[in-house]
Amino acid sequence: MEKVNIGVIGVGRIGKLHTRNLKYQISGAKVLAVADIFEESAQQVASQLEIPIAEKDYRTLLENKDIDAVVICSSTDTHAQIISEAAQAGKHIFCEKPIALDLDKIDQAITAVKKAGIKLQVGFNRRFDPSFKKAKELVSKGTIGTPHLVRITSRDPEPPPISYVKVSGGIFLDMMIHDFDMARYLLDQEVVELMAVGSCLVDPAIGEAGDIDTAIVTLKYEGGAWGTIDNSRKAVYGYDQRIEIFGSEGCVSVGNPRPTEVIINSAKDTISDKPLYFFIERYQEAYLAEMEEFIQCIKEDREPSVGGLDGKISVQMGYAAKESLGKRSFVKLIR
Amino acid sequence: MEKVNIGVIGVGRIGKLHTRNLKYQISGAKVLAVADIFEESAQQVASQLEIPIAEKDYRTLLENKDIDAVVICSSTDTHAQIISEAAQAGKHIFCEKPIALDLDKIDQAITAVKKAGIKLQVGFNRRFDPSFKKAKELVSKGTIGTPHLVRITSRDPEPPPISYVKVSGGIFLDMMIHDFDMARYLLDQEVVELMAVGSCLVDPAIGEAGDIDTAIVTLKYEGGAWGTIDNSRKAVYGYDQRIEIFGSEGCVSVGNPRPTEVIINSAKDTISDKPLYFFIERYQEAYLAEMEEFIQCIKEDREPSVGGLDGKISVQMGYAAKESLGKRSFVKLIR
Amino acid sequence: MEKVNIGVIGVGRIGKLHTRNLKYQISGAKVLAVADIFEESAQQVASQLEIPIAEKDYRTLLENKDIDAVVICSSTDTHAQIISEAAQAGKHIFCEKPIALDLDKIDQAITAVKKAGIKLQVGFNRRFDPSFKKAKELVSKGTIGTPHLVRITSRDPEPPPISYVKVSGGIFLDMMIHDFDMARYLLDQEVVELMAVGSCLVDPAIGEAGDIDTAIVTLKYEGGAWGTIDNSRKAVYGYDQRIEIFGSEGCVSVGNPRPTEVIINSAKDTISDKPLYFFIERYQEAYLAEMEEFIQCIKEDREPSVGGLDGKISVQMGYAAKESLGKRSFVKLIR
Amino acid sequence: MEKVNIGVIGVGRIGKLHTRNLKYQISGAKVLAVADIFEESAQQVASQLEIPIAEKDYRTLLENKDIDAVVICSSTDTHAQIISEAAQAGKHIFCEKPIALDLDKIDQAITAVKKAGIKLQVGFNRRFDPSFKKAKELVSKGTIGTPHLVRITSRDPEPPPISYVKVSGGIFLDMMIHDFDMARYLLDQEVVELMAVGSCLVDPAIGEAGDIDTAIVTLKYEGGAWGTIDNSRKAVYGYDQRIEIFGSEGCVSVGNPRPTEVIINSAKDTISDKPLYFFIERYQEAYLAEMEEFIQCIKEDREPSVGGLDGKISVQMGYAAKESLGKRSFVKLIR
Repeated sequence: MEKVNIGVIGVGRIGKLHTRNLKYQISGAKVLAVADIFEESAQQVASQLEIPIAEKDYRTLLENKDIDAVVICSSTDTHAQIISEAAQAGKHIFCEKPIALDLDKIDQAITAVKKAGIKLQVGFNRRFDPSFKKAKELVSKGTIGTPHLVRITSRDPEPPPISYVKVSGGIFLDMMIHDFDMARYLLDQEVVELMAVGSCLVDPAIGEAGDIDTAIVTLKYEGGAWGTIDNSRKAVYGYDQRIEIFGSEGCVSVGNPRPTEVIINSAKDTISDKPLYFFIERYQEAYLAEMEEFIQCIKEDREPSVGGLDGKISVQMGYAAKESLGKRSFVKLIR
Repeated sequence: MEKVNIGVIGVGRIGKLHTRNLKYQISGAKVLAVADIFEESAQQVASQLEIPIAEKDYRTLLENKDIDAVVICSSTDTHAQIISEAAQAGKHIFCEKPIALDLDKIDQAITAVKKAGIKLQVGFNRRFDPSFKKAKELVSKGTIGTPHLVRITSRDPEPPPISYVKVSGGIFLDMMIHDFDMARYLLDQEVVELMAVGSCLVDPAIGEAGDIDTAIVTLKYEGGAWGTIDNSRKAVYGYDQRIEIFGSEGCVSVGNPRPTEVIINSAKDTISDKPLYFFIERYQEAYLAEMEEFIQCIKEDREPSVGGLDGKISVQMGYAAKESLGKRSFVKLIR
Repeated sequence: MEKVNIGVIGVGRIGKLHTRNLKYQISGAKVLAVADIFEESAQQVASQLEIPIAEKDYRTLLENKDIDAVVICSSTDTHAQIISEAAQAGKHIFCEKPIALDLDKIDQAITAVKKAGIKLQVGFNRRFDPSFKKAKELVSKGTIGTPHLVRITSRDPEPPPISYVKVSGGIFLDMMIHDFDMARYLLDQEVVELMAVGSCLVDPAIGEAGDIDTAIVTLKYEGGAWGTIDNSRKAVYGYDQRIEIFGSEGCVSVGNPRPTEVIINSAKDTISDKPLYFFIERYQEAYLAEMEEFIQCIKEDREPSVGGLDGKISVQMGYAAKESLGKRSFVKLIR
Repeated sequence: MEKVNIGVIGVGRIGKLHTRNLKYQISGAKVLAVADIFEESAQQVASQLEIPIAEKDYRTLLENKDIDAVVICSSTDTHAQIISEAAQAGKHIFCEKPIALDLDKIDQAITAVKKAGIKLQVGFNRRFDPSFKKAKELVSKGTIGTPHLVRITSRDPEPPPISYVKVSGGIFLDMMIHDFDMARYLLDQEVVELMAVGSCLVDPAIGEAGDIDTAIVTLKYEGGAWGTIDNSRKAVYGYDQRIEIFGSEGCVSVGNPRPTEVIINSAKDTISDKPLYFFIERYQEAYLAEMEEFIQCIKEDREPSVGGLDGKISVQMGYAAKESLGKRSFVKLIR
């Protein structure tokens, strides 16, 4: 297989970003088609990025024998169904997170994938951030000894629209799900129990929509280490994404990159840039790297490093956090 | 009152440090006497620092009419009793933390202080660290808006001897007590409930002594903000003392100072100093500043900014943490 | 003009980089053709990047009526001639630095450009680095008041092959030429005189080839400020590119970006990444931004911010530095 | 000798600082007497710091048999004479820089010291700064290989009064003299030639007083390395004291320490402290360390690491810089 022929399903912001990366930066891939329920969007992207085929119905892509793999960036509620159909059609699958908010649907999708024997990679892009990846590798090779404490900070620059909050599944399934995956990734260990606290401090409208905007989860790893994750829907200074792993032989941490290296010494202060604005800026390299991994896995016939089970466990953790918040006590994660 | 005449009770490491500061760096004070149950220690310090009087029994100092104030640095189990006696003798009191491990004894000491109308300052030195103080002042004046999240990291470079661990009252009363005070200080707010987790990850001998060495406490402030404190008895890279307060308008944080500003660019890495070794190095300025505050409070007849109630509440928080660890659930702080 | 049609002349490392950027990242451009005296290189690049035309002779591109502009990345000794011919053919020109090592040839090229009324942009990529650009803008808008001192550090990770050193024109024309341009750019002022020192400290073979590998130039601006530039052909820790502008109201500086934000606290040190390896890594964004500027200038019919005169003056400064090194005294720059 | 008995001559700002350090922080020393031509100053300091003897005439101290050593902090024009007399009186000598502005007088003082066989330490305090000291030690032990480039930045927060400028000897002898010493210290090598440029950019009144306020010196070491020193009389952001040594195997640098470790993330910027205000704040530890060294040298009968010759050479470099500025060419340093 010289080039992997790709169909992209859903070309909103993130779908378009993946299409552009696949088209222009990944030599091993060729985007043959895009599909979007808003047909006009599909046509616009196809025209702009010179993609031969633009469709309204993703099934047309699944029926196209030339297409080897699909990249699913449609709305969350459609992921599981499309995964099952794509698997049956023998297409390899890259799917944005989460696979579904319903665990049964996730199981069905995973079963379909297994049955078809195709590759499934879930879009936990942060695993491919060069800094987080290096941190994880240092932990893996024992640089900090046995891990004792993990700290993950994840704060958005501003909350999503209330209309989105209402259907998002809540902060734990929509936002902290990335951090749950990061927590597992960094130590290559499962979390055995967790405890969530939080409230609505940023915007009362989020509370009225039944969600919270500020949360802390404390978690315990199977290896005995403890972790905390803190989330806020609004950090006025930009996207705040930091981690720290502390162990018996040291500590490895990752701070926020900044747009420039400029420092101003004024009569009053020392001033440097604030962090990058949001995920599109911060995870630019990560989005590209995850797609390169997906294409390489197909070409080399190996399993993606982040698959269906990872997609499922992060959702399970989200539900456990929701349950914990209500009960005000620890919730065990059973698998 | 031109100079405040001081008697220091207990001249172990910290007592000697205070004596030296009072003698050499604080122009408003004059150390008249030192006392220590190890009389030889008292004599050595007196001789070395040119203090006129060295006694075995602290009561001799309390009876000395020339002495205006005492600095209590004896072992924890003697603090409350000495406070009561010193108060009755009309001496102003600086007392190392904790006042006592027994809340009744703390109450008795506070009552004696109130009755005598003298000043009592408790040795929460970290409040006087220039960085933490500036952070707190920024929060007070609204630089970060309404606080939403507080994070305190406090890790020692190595555990104390097991013999000490056994009588220390445990990690929450011996070590995290400083962080409980810091938590209250930073927001100038009370904590209404907290939840502790932790285990023995550093040294099994600490576990055998009935204590843990790694702990995380999640806490809720009366104003609605959430906080986390993490403690470890052993950070191989030195004393790790950081804070972060995140709010609606920004974030203020304090990192670890380093011994030098040297940076090495090698063929392999960029290398800088590790943090200062331990509290003596890190809080040198803070120890001096708290004593200056004490002397100024006496001279200007005003209440110390950190008094008996602060000493009591931090111990209450320690007990709440202990209780929470056992129950695995939140514990409310009742006052 | 919807898209600017481009022909790239010379597709070695930097030519290929520009072709890739133009093809994949700059929506306003379309690469119609590439040419290289090594025809096979042209064909390979054309095939790999899906460029319709691959030629051995650049003149074929100049004759192609569909081509609006050429990007000249051939060897330095061919630049001036190709500029003249391209200008006569009415093509807009982006040319890698230097235009030529011979000032007369530079003048002829500039004259041809003026006569033809086409755009010429010279490849001083560093002007488009986001950090340097921001620093310059801060200086322009008066953030640091009147500039007094400028410091530019520019050190390569390793020397070029001796075969290249021999034909390079020497460190001042090959390497420091970028810093001469940076010096002018940062203050938007001309340098009126300069003084060069230097010697061969890195590799005796460079000395045997008649060049030096370590140099410092002190320069005076027309506005009265002083500057220093230091160059080394070998910084074992990677590409070291820093600037500092100090003025009456403050100082603005730019440090080296690093590949990741990872920090390791070990029992021995605090360790972070070394700088990026070399110009390809460091100036990735700058290479793209300069090409975007070129395309925009054509589309909007405005002069590029860095043109023929900038190309000429930097070469004049290189010759002045050479002369100064020999005379061991200041050399005035006459224009 | 249990304690070294000290007499301090001249108790202006720096003399008082040394007296305080000797009295309170250096256990091996005892300040017996202070002298000052303003007798009232001597009496005030003596009273405040509890020094037994206060004199107007320093000769009284030289005649005092109990005094082992003197610390000379009087005005520069008196240094050489007092050194000679103190040496004849058999007193060890710590003298603030410069020994004199007249090289003959320096030679006479050095001769007197040699003849008397007493210790002379010159007050180049920066050598004792923990960061610069560590940098120098790293260079000494080969961490950066063979040194190629040295960069020293030294900028004051504000110019001295014009009355002082007039008698100061000029920027090279008054201010850069410290950097000349630093240049020699860092590589443990002599400078063989130097070239100075500079002008009056900060305040025309400094120019009218016959001095400049902004200067750059380029220098060559005997080992082949090159160095630059830049000075400004006014950095609005505080005392700017940085160094960098670049060599065949890496680079070691020292930045400015800051008063606190506080970082503010605001909606606009990331803000940290500006550097410490001036030498008193920046070199607090260095002033103490140099005095400790002096006392130890006396007690252990060894030569101070910075003696009369260091004092002389730095003045020679100052004159060479003055000469170079006039001639606009390099000046060789002959010894």
